[in-house]
Amino acid sequence: MIDLRSDTITRPTQKMREAMFQAEVGDDVYGEDPTINKLEMLAAKMLGKEAALFVTSGTQGNQIAVLTHCRQGDEIILDEDSHIVFYEGGAISAFAGVQPRTIKTEGGFMDPLKLKEAIRANDIHFPDTSLICLENTHNRGGGVAIPPSHMAELYHVAKEHNIPIHLDGARLFNSAVALGEPLTAFTQYTTTVQVCLSKGLGAPVGSILAGSKEFIDKARKWRKRLGGGLRQAGVLGAAGIIALNEMVERLAEDHQNAKKLATGLNKHPLLSVVNHVDTNIVLIDISETGMHSSQFIDKLKSQDILAVPFGPTTVRFTTHYDLNMEQIEQAIDRILSLKF
Amino acid sequence: MIDLRSDTITRPTQKMREAMFQAEVGDDVYGEDPTINKLEMLAAKMLGKEAALFVTSGTQGNQIAVLTHCRQGDEIILDEDSHIVFYEGGAISAFAGVQPRTIKTEGGFMDPLKLKEAIRANDIHFPDTSLICLENTHNRGGGVAIPPSHMAELYHVAKEHNIPIHLDGARLFNSAVALGEPLTAFTQYTTTVQVCLSKGLGAPVGSILAGSKEFIDKARKWRKRLGGGLRQAGVLGAAGIIALNEMVERLAEDHQNAKKLATGLNKHPLLSVVNHVDTNIVLIDISETGMHSSQFIDKLKSQDILAVPFGPTTVRFTTHYDLNMEQIEQAIDRILSLKF
Amino acid sequence: MIDLRSDTITRPTQKMREAMFQAEVGDDVYGEDPTINKLEMLAAKMLGKEAALFVTSGTQGNQIAVLTHCRQGDEIILDEDSHIVFYEGGAISAFAGVQPRTIKTEGGFMDPLKLKEAIRANDIHFPDTSLICLENTHNRGGGVAIPPSHMAELYHVAKEHNIPIHLDGARLFNSAVALGEPLTAFTQYTTTVQVCLSKGLGAPVGSILAGSKEFIDKARKWRKRLGGGLRQAGVLGAAGIIALNEMVERLAEDHQNAKKLATGLNKHPLLSVVNHVDTNIVLIDISETGMHSSQFIDKLKSQDILAVPFGPTTVRFTTHYDLNMEQIEQAIDRILSLKF
Amino acid sequence: MIDLRSDTITRPTQKMREAMFQAEVGDDVYGEDPTINKLEMLAAKMLGKEAALFVTSGTQGNQIAVLTHCRQGDEIILDEDSHIVFYEGGAISAFAGVQPRTIKTEGGFMDPLKLKEAIRANDIHFPDTSLICLENTHNRGGGVAIPPSHMAELYHVAKEHNIPIHLDGARLFNSAVALGEPLTAFTQYTTTVQVCLSKGLGAPVGSILAGSKEFIDKARKWRKRLGGGLRQAGVLGAAGIIALNEMVERLAEDHQNAKKLATGLNKHPLLSVVNHVDTNIVLIDISETGMHSSQFIDKLKSQDILAVPFGPTTVRFTTHYDLNMEQIEQAIDRILSLKF
Repeated sequence: MIDLRSDTITRPTQKMREAMFQAEVGDDVYGEDPTINKLEMLAAKMLGKEAALFVTSGTQGNQIAVLTHCRQGDEIILDEDSHIVFYEGGAISAFAGVQPRTIKTEGGFMDPLKLKEAIRANDIHFPDTSLICLENTHNRGGGVAIPPSHMAELYHVAKEHNIPIHLDGARLFNSAVALGEPLTAFTQYTTTVQVCLSKGLGAPVGSILAGSKEFIDKARKWRKRLGGGLRQAGVLGAAGIIALNEMVERLAEDHQNAKKLATGLNKHPLLSVVNHVDTNIVLIDISETGMHSSQFIDKLKSQDILAVPFGPTTVRFTTHYDLNMEQIEQAIDRILSLKF
Repeated sequence: MIDLRSDTITRPTQKMREAMFQAEVGDDVYGEDPTINKLEMLAAKMLGKEAALFVTSGTQGNQIAVLTHCRQGDEIILDEDSHIVFYEGGAISAFAGVQPRTIKTEGGFMDPLKLKEAIRANDIHFPDTSLICLENTHNRGGGVAIPPSHMAELYHVAKEHNIPIHLDGARLFNSAVALGEPLTAFTQYTTTVQVCLSKGLGAPVGSILAGSKEFIDKARKWRKRLGGGLRQAGVLGAAGIIALNEMVERLAEDHQNAKKLATGLNKHPLLSVVNHVDTNIVLIDISETGMHSSQFIDKLKSQDILAVPFGPTTVRFTTHYDLNMEQIEQAIDRILSLKF
Repeated sequence: MIDLRSDTITRPTQKMREAMFQAEVGDDVYGEDPTINKLEMLAAKMLGKEAALFVTSGTQGNQIAVLTHCRQGDEIILDEDSHIVFYEGGAISAFAGVQPRTIKTEGGFMDPLKLKEAIRANDIHFPDTSLICLENTHNRGGGVAIPPSHMAELYHVAKEHNIPIHLDGARLFNSAVALGEPLTAFTQYTTTVQVCLSKGLGAPVGSILAGSKEFIDKARKWRKRLGGGLRQAGVLGAAGIIALNEMVERLAEDHQNAKKLATGLNKHPLLSVVNHVDTNIVLIDISETGMHSSQFIDKLKSQDILAVPFGPTTVRFTTHYDLNMEQIEQAIDRILSLKF
Repeated sequence: MIDLRSDTITRPTQKMREAMFQAEVGDDVYGEDPTINKLEMLAAKMLGKEAALFVTSGTQGNQIAVLTHCRQGDEIILDEDSHIVFYEGGAISAFAGVQPRTIKTEGGFMDPLKLKEAIRANDIHFPDTSLICLENTHNRGGGVAIPPSHMAELYHVAKEHNIPIHLDGARLFNSAVALGEPLTAFTQYTTTVQVCLSKGLGAPVGSILAGSKEFIDKARKWRKRLGGGLRQAGVLGAAGIIALNEMVERLAEDHQNAKKLATGLNKHPLLSVVNHVDTNIVLIDISETGMHSSQFIDKLKSQDILAVPFGPTTVRFTTHYDLNMEQIEQAIDRILSLKF
C-alpha cells in the first residue's frame, strides 16, 4: 500500500522511539517536565518568540490562539479555505464565540486591499475585528509556500489597525525549506504562530504554539480548559525535540518526490495537476475522467494507493517521510496505467 | 431635513398612537396580553405558519431562530452580505456558537449549486450544517425582491438534505407588494420567517418570528433568555396589528418614490444607480465624485438630506412612510445641484 | 379576581398612557429618541451613575451587565437563590459563557467571609472571578430590603480584590422606600445597577442599566446583539419617566398592604409567614395544610385569588399598584375561610 | 524529596516504556491506530459500555461528556465541590454553555432528595436539566469511595426524570479496589463514565471516556474540536493497556500507605485527619498550628516533603506508585518532629 493521504500518517522514527523510551519526565501541569520545558524553549527560539507551549494538535494550537486573542462577539478574518474555518468543526464559533469573516484568496495569497476592507469600522452593528489568521504553507491552495514578502504586506495592514496576526504554520517548515528562508523570516510578521511536529517532521503527536510570554501564560489556562494539560508529556516531547533538530532539512526530499509525482501524473491524458507544487502536496483535477473524487479514490485503492478527496473533482496526494522515491515511481506507474 | 437613511425612522401613525393608548394589556410573560395574542395569531395566519412570536427587533427574531434551529458547533449557510452576518454584531457565533459558511450571491440570488456544495458532508473535521438563512428583500443587494420561484429552487436543495430554511424577511412585505404575490407564496418555501413591523409598516417597535407551534414554544424560552419577554407588551402590539392590517399595500408608494429618486439621481453626471430598484432602496455609486462615502454623506447633510454609507463609494437612500413625493422631488433637486 | 402573583402584572396608569400617546420619538438605534435620551439621563442621575441604558427587561439588563463585565471562561459569584441564576434560563452560561459560583445567603444577606473565600486564587485550574452580583430587594428571600451598610461590607471585599459589583436592583426602589434611604445610598457600593420600571413602578415595559459612560457604551453593543435595540422606543420611555418621577413614593402603600396581608394570613392555623415582610412580598409556608404548593395555588384560584408557588410548600404573594387595601382585606377573608 | 502532592506525578513504569517503544501505531484521526483501538475495546469491556474513546486528560473526558450530552442553555447538576466545577477553569460554561446547579454533599454522598429538588420543572424561566454528574472516588471529599448502592439511589432519581448520569471516575479504580467491587458494579448506574489512566495506574498521559456507541461517535467529533484528535496515539495507548491490565490491583498498596500516613499524622498534637481514608488521599486539618495552608506547605517543603493546599487550613496528601511504605514512614517521622 502506498499511502499518499497525508504527512500526518508518518510513524515515529527509531531515534524518536529511543528518545521517548529514555525521556526524563515530570508532571507538566505543574510545569515540571524537563523534556517539555526543553522542547518549549527550543521551539520558542527557532520561531523567534519569547515563549512556546506544547499542544496535542494543530487544531488545539489554533483554537487556543483564537481563545486567547479574542473574546466572544469578536470577528476574525481568514481565508475561506483556511484549515481553521474548513477543517476544525466550527470550533472557533463553538468555543471562542467568534464570527469568521472569510476572504477568497488566490491560492493562499490574500489581497492586502481585501484584508483592509474586511476590517470592521467602529459601528454598533459590527463585531470588533480582533484577529487575522494566515496559513503557510496553504493546504487547500496546494501546499503553497507563501513568501515572507507577502506576509509583510498583510502585516503592515494589520499593524496599522492594531490587530494581531496568528499564523497557522502547521507546515511552515515546508515553506522555510522550499523558499530557503529561516523560520523567523516568516514569524517576524506574526503575533503568534502554530507549527506541527507530527506532519512532515514525523513526531507521533503534537504541535507548538508560540508568542509573547504574557500570551503563552494565558494560553496555558485555555489549554487546561480544553483538556490539553498533560502529565508526563515528556514522552511525546522527546520525539518533538528530534523533529525540530533533525527532521526539518529532509523535507526537501518530500518536495522533490512531490514534484516527481506531479510531473508523472500530468502525463496521464485525463489527469492534470492544478497547483504549483512548492512543497509536498499535489492536487489533481480528475474531471476529465468523468468520475467523482470519491470513486476515483476507490479506484486508486484497488491499486493499493491511498489519496484523499479535495472537492468533487479534485484529489490530493501528499508525500512524506514514510515514502521513498521508489514508491513514488511505483505510484506513478500504477496510476498512469489506469483506464477510465 | 429629508431623512432617507432608513425606513426604521418612521414614527407611529396617529391611528397607531390611538390604538396603543387604548390597548387592552396583560402580562405577556404569562401569555396573558390579549393584544399580543391577537397580533401573534394574525401574523401567523398572514405568514401561513402555525404560530408566531412578537419580538423586539428583526435582529432578535433572527437570533432566536438560529438559537432554536441550531446548537453550538453547527454551521449555517447564508449570503456573505446578509444582515445576519453583516449587521448583527457577530451574535450568531457569540450566542448560538454557530459558524457561518457564507456564499457570494448575485445581489441576493443564491446559486442553488453553490448552496448544495456548501452543505457539509459527514466527516469528523466538519461541523454539521443545520440551517440555511435567506433574506428577502435583500438589503445589501439593494432591496431586491427575490421571487418565490427562486426561493423554491433553494428550498428543494434544502429539503433534499433535510435542512431547515429561515427567512430574514425584515422587508418581506416590500417583496410581496413589488411582485404582487401573497406572503405565503414566499413563506411556503421556508421553515421559519421573521418580518419587521417597524420598517416600512411604521410600527414603533417590533418584529414577528413565525413557524411551527413546536418551534415557537422553544423560541419563547430563547426570547426570555435574551431579555425579550415583555410585560404589558400589548401597548406595542396594538401598533403592530395596524401595521399588518393597514400599512402593507401603501408600500407601493415608497417603491414609486424610490424609482423616482433613482431616475432623478441618475441624471447627475457623477452619480449612478447601481441596483435594480425593486422596492424602497436606491444604491448610488459615487466613485466619480472622488469622494469617500462618509464625505459624501456629510455634503448631503449640509443640504439637509440624510443617507447612509454602504461601502467606500456606495451610498444608500431609503424611502418610507414619513416621506412624500414632494420631499423626494426636493431631494432630487438639491442633489442634482451639488458640485464635486 | 385578586391577582397577587407579581407586581409585573400592573397595567400602565392613565397618565402613562397619555404620555405614551404624546411621546416625542426618534430612532433610538441612532440615539435619536428624545424621550429615551431624557429617561436615560434622569435614571443615571437618580442612580448616581454617569450613564444609563433603557433595556426591555430586568433579565436583559442583567445579561448585558454580565456580558459587558466578563468574558467566557470567567466565574461570577452570586447568591444561589438570586434571580440571575434561578430565573434567567441559564443565560449567563449560555451567552456570556461564565460559570456561576453560588453562595448560600441568609435571606439575601451574603456573609462577607464566604464572599472572600469564593473569590478564586490565581491557579491554572481556576477560572478568573470577574464579577460579583447582588440582589436588592432579594426576591427569593422574601422581598428583603438589604441595607446600604451590608452592601458596604461586601463592597469592601470586592474592592480589595478589584472585582466589580453588579446589583440586580429590579426592586431597589422598594428597598429605598422601605429603609428611607436615597437610591444612591445603595448604588454607591455598586459598579453597575439594573432597576425595573415595570414592577412596582407600573410602567408597561422596561428596565434601566446604569454605570460608567465607558461601560454603557460597550453595553449598548451587547444590547444590539441581544435584539434589544429598539426604534421609536420613546413610546415606552414616556411611561418610564413617569414611573421614575411619580411612582416611587407610593410603593409604601404596597408595603403596608403586604404587612396587612401577612398579619392576616398568619391567623390561619395552618399557614405561617416565613419572611420578614420588609416590602411587597409575603412568603407563606403551607406545609401544615398537607398540600403541595401547586395544589394550594389551585385552591386559591377557585376563590378568585392568584399567587405563585415558591417551592414545594411555599407560596408567594405580591402586592402592587393594581391592588388596594380593600382587595387585600377581601383576600385575607377568603383565605382565612379556607378549609384543608 | 517525598512527593505527596498527587498521584498524577507517577512516572511510567519500565514496562510501560518498553511497550511504548514497541507500540504498533497508525493515524488515530483516521481510526487506524491498532494500539488505541485495542485500548478502547479493552476499556469499554472493563467499564461495561459499548464503546470507549481515548482522551488526553480527565478534564477533556469530562468536557466532551458535557458537550455531547448537553447543549448551550441547559443546566447540569453536580456537587459544588466536584472536580468539574472546581478545577476545570469554568470550561463547562465557557465551551458547553451550560449552567451548573450545585449541591452541597456530605463528603461526596449526594442526598437523593436534594437531587430530585434540583431538577428543574418545565417553566419558561428555567433551563432544562440535561445531565447529572457524579464523582467517585470523591477528591475534595477526601478520596471517598462511594459504594454502588448509593449510586443506585441517585440513578433511580435520574431515570425517573429521564436524565443521563455522567460519572467522573478519574479515580474509580481506587473505589473498586477499596470496596472490592468490579468496575461494572458502579458503571451500571451511569450513562457515561470517564476514568484516568494517568493517576494511580501510572500511565504518563490519558483517560478513557466510555458510553454507548452512538454517544462515542458524537464524542469523537467534540474531541476533534478540542484538539484531542491525535495521530500516532498508540505510543500513549500502549502504556494505557498496561495500566488497565496490570496496575489496578496494586492500588491496594497506596490505600494501605494512606491509612498508615493518616494514623501517623494523627499523632501530632496539632494535626488531625478530617476524612475517612478509604483510598489514597489524606486530608489534614492544620488549624491548630495557627498557620495558613500555604505556609504549612512551605514548612513541609523545607523538610523535603511536598503536599498541596486544600483550603485555608486543610492540606491534602496523596499516596501513589512512586512512593513505598518506607518513604511514607519517613514522611511521618519528619512531620511528627515539626514544631509550630
